[in-house]
Amino acid sequence: MKILNSVIIASTILVFTFSQTQAIAQQNNRKVRIANIEIDPAYVQEYRAALSEHAKTAVKVEPGVLALQAVYDKVHPTKVTVFEVYASEHAYQLHLKTPHFLKYKNGTLKMVKSLELVEVAPIAIEIKPELMK
Amino acid sequence: MKILNSVIIASTILVFTFSQTQAIAQQNNRKVRIANIEIDPAYVQEYRAALSEHAKTAVKVEPGVLALQAVYDKVHPTKVTVFEVYASEHAYQLHLKTPHFLKYKNGTLKMVKSLELVEVAPIAIEIKPELMK
Repeated sequence: MKILNSVIIASTILVFTFSQTQAIAQQNNRKVRIANIEIDPAYVQEYRAALSEHAKTAVKVEPGVLALQAVYDKVHPTKVTVFEVYASEHAYQLHLKTPHFLKYKNGTLKMVKSLELVEVAPIAIEIKPELMK
Repeated sequence: MKILNSVIIASTILVFTFSQTQAIAQQNNRKVRIANIEIDPAYVQEYRAALSEHAKTAVKVEPGVLALQAVYDKVHPTKVTVFEVYASEHAYQLHLKTPHFLKYKNGTLKMVKSLELVEVAPIAIEIKPELMK
């Protein structure tokens, strides 16, 4: 009985360690990025509507798009920042081929004055569940 | 019976509308901000550890700290960006007085070369629950 108990405990630890290791590996695979976008002042409202619709659709329908958080500078409303998290580089490449991304990209080309993409790595990603509602 | 049904339906709609209005009001109250921080190259690792610990504690123990997402630039690792969401200005003012914030702030003063705080407004905050796993 003691041996059986030990085997069960050891197996549980192994399975737990394996799933933890897998979770960490998946997290390390993530592509995290900041997009700094400057919008033509004539299209500020129109651009926000297009980006909002695109972000909602992408996070809803694409398993590999984990988060798209877009904001604009209150003092300089033409400055937009998007904080993007993809499950992997592969997920990002799939994202670029989706109809909703192509619609957003082509539909906003004339509205975007400049686009800077910054590859980043996480220090801490701490979010309360209520922000995800 | 028909009247009773109508009253129940009308009440349900009223309660639903009220809770929706409340939810939107709460969201509009939120303080969203981006902090752009430049770290002394000598303290890059030490600073990350302090910020990570601070973000975990703040989101865990403070009801009004909804999210702290911190990243560093892969090409320029001394550049750190924090995407911050507080439930309200009041929640942020409470945050500034917490022991963990004061410990982080005072403990990292010598590590921070510059700090730029940008007040922003949300366009889209779309996050999958699995981002937190």
